[in-house]
Amino acid sequence: MADTVVVGSMALDSVKTPFGEVDRVVGGAAVYASVAAGLLTPPRVVGVVGGDFPEDALDLLRSRGADLAGVERVPDGRSFFWSGVYDYAMSDRETLATELNVFADFSPTLPDSYRESRYCFLANIQPQVQLAVLDQLGQACFVMCDTMNLWIETERDALGEVLSRVDLALLNDSEIRQLAGTPNLARAAERVLDLGPRFVVIKKGEYGATLVSDDDYFSIPSYPLPNVVDPTGAGDSFAGGMIGLLARQDDCCDRELRRAVAFGTVIASACVEGFSLDGLRGLDGEELRRRYDALREMVRFEAMEWDEFDRPR
Amino acid sequence: MADTVVVGSMALDSVKTPFGEVDRVVGGAAVYASVAAGLLTPPRVVGVVGGDFPEDALDLLRSRGADLAGVERVPDGRSFFWSGVYDYAMSDRETLATELNVFADFSPTLPDSYRESRYCFLANIQPQVQLAVLDQLGQACFVMCDTMNLWIETERDALGEVLSRVDLALLNDSEIRQLAGTPNLARAAERVLDLGPRFVVIKKGEYGATLVSDDDYFSIPSYPLPNVVDPTGAGDSFAGGMIGLLARQDDCCDRELRRAVAFGTVIASACVEGFSLDGLRGLDGEELRRRYDALREMVRFEAMEWDEFDRPR
Repeated sequence: MADTVVVGSMALDSVKTPFGEVDRVVGGAAVYASVAAGLLTPPRVVGVVGGDFPEDALDLLRSRGADLAGVERVPDGRSFFWSGVYDYAMSDRETLATELNVFADFSPTLPDSYRESRYCFLANIQPQVQLAVLDQLGQACFVMCDTMNLWIETERDALGEVLSRVDLALLNDSEIRQLAGTPNLARAAERVLDLGPRFVVIKKGEYGATLVSDDDYFSIPSYPLPNVVDPTGAGDSFAGGMIGLLARQDDCCDRELRRAVAFGTVIASACVEGFSLDGLRGLDGEELRRRYDALREMVRFEAMEWDEFDRPR
Repeated sequence: MADTVVVGSMALDSVKTPFGEVDRVVGGAAVYASVAAGLLTPPRVVGVVGGDFPEDALDLLRSRGADLAGVERVPDGRSFFWSGVYDYAMSDRETLATELNVFADFSPTLPDSYRESRYCFLANIQPQVQLAVLDQLGQACFVMCDTMNLWIETERDALGEVLSRVDLALLNDSEIRQLAGTPNLARAAERVLDLGPRFVVIKKGEYGATLVSDDDYFSIPSYPLPNVVDPTGAGDSFAGGMIGLLARQDDCCDRELRRAVAFGTVIASACVEGFSLDGLRGLDGEELRRRYDALREMVRFEAMEWDEFDRPR
C-alpha cells in the first residue's frame, strides 16, 4: 500500500433534488474523495474549513485513517458554501449560490510528511492552485486531476499546463467535449491525450465511465440503482475510489487502472443513494465486494467459437 | 440455425448530418434490420415499396440470402419517405418530413412459408399492425418489438397489448422513460417488464445498450468510433444483429441474449460509419469478429483477491 494525497474543497452544501432537500450539510470534492478513498487507503487530506465545519465530519475521516495534518481550520471564517437544485431526471443541476469564503485564499502548503506521497488526486480547483500543489509533490507521484467548465473557459492556458504535468485527467462528458472542441468522445479523448496526460477518464454519470490511453480503451456502465437520491459528490467519490485503489495496490498498470475505474463506479453508486456522506457512510466492505463482483458479471459476455460460427450456411 | 422474420418500413431517406447530406437514399427499419440480420442469418422480409425503390437495394438483401416473398412492390406508388437533420453532436435529430405513401396502407399478410418462423423482429410500426403480424405467427416464435414516442403518446392501449404478447421490448432511453413515467432507467425497465415482455433492451445510442430481465442485467458501452457519419438506422441495425444472432444460435437463453446485444452493438457501429447502407455493406466477417472480440476486451476487468484485499492495514 502506498500513500495518497487528496486536495480540494471541503464545503457545506444546500441541495434540492426530486427526493428531498438538505441545508448546509457536509460536502466538497476533497471530503467526498477522501471518504471514498478511505474505504481502500488512508488518505492525506489537504483543504481548508471555517469555524462552521462540523467536527463529526472530520471524525468520520479520522475513523477511516485519514491524516488531517493538511486541513487548516479558520475558526472565525466560514466554510466554502455551494447550493444547487437538480432537475427531474437528475442529469442537470442549477447552481443557486457559490460562496468561496475561506476557500477564496486557499493556497495549500503540503505538510512535509505528505511530500513523498506516491499518489495524488487534485480535485477541481483553480488550475493555478493545482500547479502550486504539483510543485510540492515528488516527480514519482501518480497524479489525477479533475477540472470544470469554468476553468476550461477562463483559464485554458493554466489548465493546459496542469494537463501537461499530470498522469490522468478526469473529465465529465460535457467538459471533455468543451475542452477538445468536438462532440465525439473517442476523438475528444485522443485530443486530451495529446495535451499531455497518459490517461483520460470520461465520467458519463448514469451512463458509466471510460478510460482511454494510447494503449488501452476500457468502458463500463454505471452500477444500476433504482433509488438515486442525490448525485452530488458522485464524480469525486468516483475519483476517490480510483486513487484509493491505485494507492492500495501501489500499481498503475492497465490492469489496476481498469479495476480502479470499477471501484470508482461502485463507490460512486453508493454515494448517490443518500444526501451528503450518508450513502458513502452506508457502504461497508461486504456491499463493496458484492457490487464489484456484480458489476463484473453485468458486463460479461462470452467469446464466439468463430470456427463453428463461420461454417457455411 | 432457425428462421427469422423482419417486419417494418422500407424507405427512401433524405438525411443531413454535420458530415454531409444525402437525398432519397435507401433506408427504413426493415431494410437496416434485414441487412444487419443477414450478416448472421438469412432473414424473411415483410414490407412494401413503391416503384421508386431501387432494385439494387433488394439485390443486396438477396445477396445476404434474404427471402423477399413478403415484400410487396406497388409499381405506381411511392415508397415511404423520411427526411431529417441531425444536430452538431448527432444526439438529436429533427424530422423535416414524413410521407407514408404506400406504407399508409401497410397491412402485412405473411406468406405461408413465413408463419412457422422461430424468431421475429417487429420494427417500429403502428401497434395495430404489429398485433396483426403477431396474429399470424406461431406461439413458439420469439418476438422482439420496437416502437416510438408517437405510439407511446397516441396508442398506449394497443402498444400495451403488443408488449403483453412479445418476448423482448426494444426501446431507446427517452422512449422507456416516457413509457414508464420515470427518469430512472433501472426502475423504468422494471415497469416495462411488468407490462409483459420477459426482456427489455434499452438502446442508449453512443452510451451503449442494457438488457434487463427478472433474472439478468447486462450492460455494455457502444463500440467507440472516431468517425460517426450518420446515426440513421443504428437502432434497427442493432435489432437486426440481435435477432440474427438469436436465430443463428437458435437459442434465447441469457448467454445468447447477451451475445446478441454485443452483436447488435458491433453491427450498429458499422451502420453509423456511412450514409444509408454504406456502413453495413462495408462490414465483412473479419471486421465483425475483430470488433466483437475488441468489445469483449474493452469491458473486461479482473476479479479481486478479496482475501488478500481484506488483510488488516
